[in-house]
Amino acid sequence: MARIRCDFFSETLGLSTSMTVLLPERAATQIGMSGSTRTGDPPVLYLLHGLSDDDTTWLRRTSVERYVAPLGLAVVMPQVARSLYADQEYGSQYWTFLSQELPKVCHSFFRLSRRRADTFVAGLSMGGYGALKWALQQPGRFAAAASLSGALDLASRHRHPQRPLDPATWHAAFGDRTVRGTDDDLLTLLDRATSVPTRSRPDTGNTDGAGHGAGAASGAGAEAGRGAGAGSVAGAGSDGDRADGDGGLPALWIGCGTGDFLYDDNVRFADALQRAGVPATVDFSSGGHDWEYWDRAIRDVLAWLPLAPTTD
Amino acid sequence: MARIRCDFFSETLGLSTSMTVLLPERAATQIGMSGSTRTGDPPVLYLLHGLSDDDTTWLRRTSVERYVAPLGLAVVMPQVARSLYADQEYGSQYWTFLSQELPKVCHSFFRLSRRRADTFVAGLSMGGYGALKWALQQPGRFAAAASLSGALDLASRHRHPQRPLDPATWHAAFGDRTVRGTDDDLLTLLDRATSVPTRSRPDTGNTDGAGHGAGAASGAGAEAGRGAGAGSVAGAGSDGDRADGDGGLPALWIGCGTGDFLYDDNVRFADALQRAGVPATVDFSSGGHDWEYWDRAIRDVLAWLPLAPTTD
Amino acid sequence: MARIRCDFFSETLGLSTSMTVLLPERAATQIGMSGSTRTGDPPVLYLLHGLSDDDTTWLRRTSVERYVAPLGLAVVMPQVARSLYADQEYGSQYWTFLSQELPKVCHSFFRLSRRRADTFVAGLSMGGYGALKWALQQPGRFAAAASLSGALDLASRHRHPQRPLDPATWHAAFGDRTVRGTDDDLLTLLDRATSVPTRSRPDTGNTDGAGHGAGAASGAGAEAGRGAGAGSVAGAGSDGDRADGDGGLPALWIGCGTGDFLYDDNVRFADALQRAGVPATVDFSSGGHDWEYWDRAIRDVLAWLPLAPTTD
Amino acid sequence: MARIRCDFFSETLGLSTSMTVLLPERAATQIGMSGSTRTGDPPVLYLLHGLSDDDTTWLRRTSVERYVAPLGLAVVMPQVARSLYADQEYGSQYWTFLSQELPKVCHSFFRLSRRRADTFVAGLSMGGYGALKWALQQPGRFAAAASLSGALDLASRHRHPQRPLDPATWHAAFGDRTVRGTDDDLLTLLDRATSVPTRSRPDTGNTDGAGHGAGAASGAGAEAGRGAGAGSVAGAGSDGDRADGDGGLPALWIGCGTGDFLYDDNVRFADALQRAGVPATVDFSSGGHDWEYWDRAIRDVLAWLPLAPTTD
Repeated sequence: MARIRCDFFSETLGLSTSMTVLLPERAATQIGMSGSTRTGDPPVLYLLHGLSDDDTTWLRRTSVERYVAPLGLAVVMPQVARSLYADQEYGSQYWTFLSQELPKVCHSFFRLSRRRADTFVAGLSMGGYGALKWALQQPGRFAAAASLSGALDLASRHRHPQRPLDPATWHAAFGDRTVRGTDDDLLTLLDRATSVPTRSRPDTGNTDGAGHGAGAASGAGAEAGRGAGAGSVAGAGSDGDRADGDGGLPALWIGCGTGDFLYDDNVRFADALQRAGVPATVDFSSGGHDWEYWDRAIRDVLAWLPLAPTTD
Repeated sequence: MARIRCDFFSETLGLSTSMTVLLPERAATQIGMSGSTRTGDPPVLYLLHGLSDDDTTWLRRTSVERYVAPLGLAVVMPQVARSLYADQEYGSQYWTFLSQELPKVCHSFFRLSRRRADTFVAGLSMGGYGALKWALQQPGRFAAAASLSGALDLASRHRHPQRPLDPATWHAAFGDRTVRGTDDDLLTLLDRATSVPTRSRPDTGNTDGAGHGAGAASGAGAEAGRGAGAGSVAGAGSDGDRADGDGGLPALWIGCGTGDFLYDDNVRFADALQRAGVPATVDFSSGGHDWEYWDRAIRDVLAWLPLAPTTD
Repeated sequence: MARIRCDFFSETLGLSTSMTVLLPERAATQIGMSGSTRTGDPPVLYLLHGLSDDDTTWLRRTSVERYVAPLGLAVVMPQVARSLYADQEYGSQYWTFLSQELPKVCHSFFRLSRRRADTFVAGLSMGGYGALKWALQQPGRFAAAASLSGALDLASRHRHPQRPLDPATWHAAFGDRTVRGTDDDLLTLLDRATSVPTRSRPDTGNTDGAGHGAGAASGAGAEAGRGAGAGSVAGAGSDGDRADGDGGLPALWIGCGTGDFLYDDNVRFADALQRAGVPATVDFSSGGHDWEYWDRAIRDVLAWLPLAPTTD
Repeated sequence: MARIRCDFFSETLGLSTSMTVLLPERAATQIGMSGSTRTGDPPVLYLLHGLSDDDTTWLRRTSVERYVAPLGLAVVMPQVARSLYADQEYGSQYWTFLSQELPKVCHSFFRLSRRRADTFVAGLSMGGYGALKWALQQPGRFAAAASLSGALDLASRHRHPQRPLDPATWHAAFGDRTVRGTDDDLLTLLDRATSVPTRSRPDTGNTDGAGHGAGAASGAGAEAGRGAGAGSVAGAGSDGDRADGDGGLPALWIGCGTGDFLYDDNVRFADALQRAGVPATVDFSSGGHDWEYWDRAIRDVLAWLPLAPTTD
């Protein structure tokens, strides 16, 4: 694998920022490592960090580069500070940055597959929430999404801050507005994704052409919230920053340690998935809200990813 | 010189963050470069970035490492996002991070002089404002401070946003409160620094023992605002995260291009310095708000810095 | 621009190594900077370091990222240690790494134009030698090549070591063999490139399919030495690691400071170019073997590069 | 922990090079991580890479930063290319760089304990050999040394190359000379360290004042080879690039997977230790020459390290 630290400028944030990227590389003579590449541009996993982390954390706390090496899979790890993956009420448009600008930037820099079947998202804690928010808002972009110890009932987190900085973080992201019932609430997004008649669903994965401008995000996101199910895919832009949706929700993986303070939230979300008839792989096992669990769980996620052996 | 990219965790921000650090190194055989070291721990320049930049920008836009090499000077370049070097009303305690935590962290990692005579701060645009805010709030820490195209009348900037993202940036930093007349207003800090009787001035440079906790900052900053002049220096902690103040304001360098949209603000601040009887090197020359000017001006600043040839 | 530090594995070297890469990025709101992108994959400049440097040096000693930003040009900066850009007699196959593996790796990772008209090489000192060696051995790959203070008569350098480490460096690269008259001698390469009948010239730029294996290099290089002129271009592989040669030598830029210890070598090479009837831009001006000169000369080179405004 | 990528210039190598350094940091609020610091400068582990690796590899293939975080231990990871940790016959003085210059450079940049009780070295494969070579040549520097899958009978490796590049690597390092019986042979170093009368032993750990110059290495190394046992410690320089030896060999840890091609070499070395009456922790368990083993074994080594809870 190649490890890349990429310092670039985000127009959405108006800020220089960093991402860490792993790219597949054939490495027949590298000692103690196997490598793999595929024909054509590699599939890509967007891997999202937790509340106190940045783009470097996944690589530093786990052996994710080693686990990924035999899969021929690229990994993109952005940084979004303590934004809760939101377009902050007071601050910056991190959600627009992630869901609209980042894929365009990555595709303009790196050779990565643009196919939905080759595009995945996963994350831990705040990043598990971000991964599912992205997957539910833009189901046409991803073949699979995984949450590790995700803050899956974010709206309820407001009432249970874990650390002294949490209230300020919440207030910057959402101000005084209610999260429940909005595009920032996974339960609402799930409800919309599964209750709207198939034929009429737009699929935001297809409509991210605007994207770059701050401020365009909220509206686009709102559209996206409704855009799930088996809707037909129209209007995939030729600038190709997205995968071609074939309709339906991405495959879902929900994992959490039973000793995690977010365990109950995960149970509730898994129940909601079941009630909605959405198939998902649910993996609740012993573990806490720590890197021992995440170093184990990310391997389970990688083994579960529906990686296409060949292009269809 | 050694160039360091340091990814570390800030307790104040509750966030993984980065700094770029240059450390002096004798380099007799490096082709095309001279090097220099001093006896003992090197002097240090905190070099602050502008609104859209991060810790990598100074190094990428100028040849600052090359300019610094013969001086035996270390350079610390932190990142503070679009925080306006404030403890944000909605967001994070970037001011406390910079002015309290960062020096402690740097001294715990790197061998750097703790003497006031060896400690300097400079910055461009938003960072020019940050440099003077730091110097006026903690005059006991710095022997010299320089502003390049600084936003020196920040309070007036509120009424003249330059870019679409600016109002959101302002609101996150200051909410609805007034900046004029507070510790975030350089004119107010200057007034306090020069109007308080000498004997009674506390010098916050000496009282940053607490520092690490978020929330402790505002009060400390307020004290600091009054702490200038020739006050006696007491209580320099043995943990040594600071220089020993010998009283008085740091030497000041105020530079701006005459074609810069911030030129008028700089003229006003220079006038205020003159009225207050504060000596300063003022350098207004042709130039805009761009890196051609800053690549030139930083060399002027480095030549101006009162670098001690030996320890006193 | 995006700045990338890429840590990857070279099969040719059997070693993890680093490159620094700059990629164009549109940056309308980045303060003090302009940005530019082009339609399609960007042109690329391979920028080679000198004897004591690595992939980070160009960026740290000059403002090359800033100079390149308005051009929409990508820059690839590899590292080759003190190899003299040779397949070392004792050591590693750095020449094969550079001239065969690196372009393949770059094209597999990054979106870069593969067209000859969009591909350039430049370097300083040892890297100026490397740039011309590459351009003369694989003229079908490059539209232009520039040498800044290049060690253009390397064979004569053997008798004039500049520093204590130089003899060991020479011996590792070439052992006891003679450089004059071989593919490592620019004068010999120039002679071959201009004396062989056009029709029969193979163009190694086209035949680097093997490339990845260590050991294949010497032969390929030997072939390449003869591959200049206006030869027809055949067999451009579909893996596309190269530009399409349109025959003839690349445009050449030869620059050196008149106070440089390599000035005489540069004069001799410029004379040889003239005798051979090879057009070149020769720029001898005041300056030494130092970064003040190179920071100035690289701007001249960038202004001179025949960047295509559009694809032909 | 802080992760540092440090690009610096080595006078010994005449080359810009990189090291990766981990520094302890108290991190009470970093999610999923514990942190720890000690009073005073932290203990330090020099962690050496294998044949095809560089300074980034340990961090990318294992979770070593996470494992080290609770220990308050700094980790220094240099890069030495494919040098076999030798002063190369044809090439560069990598052994001198490692054993003389690197500690000086690290102590000039970072706050690290200089005490022998706080100084450790470990490595894998070629780096396991390097770790023991360093520990046996400068026993006064280290309290403990560990070899993971080390090439502990390097002299015999010459006859059993594993990969096509190995003969060239060997030849660059040793030319045509015999390794057996020299300072590059661990069995010879062990023999010297245990057969020389205690009182008369010099301890090179104490005499590395020269160090920086290339060429000084061979002699110093030769002296060092004899410098083991309980010799008195004299002349620790005030520049403090070393720990204070209290005599005797460092504590030793020898581990290897039973499925490793180097297993027999490790058995032979463990036998030699036993015959010489040198106590060592020997850990042969199932495993191969791969990162699954090293990610496990480094945790065993960290648990075994005789970390001092307080300064004596």
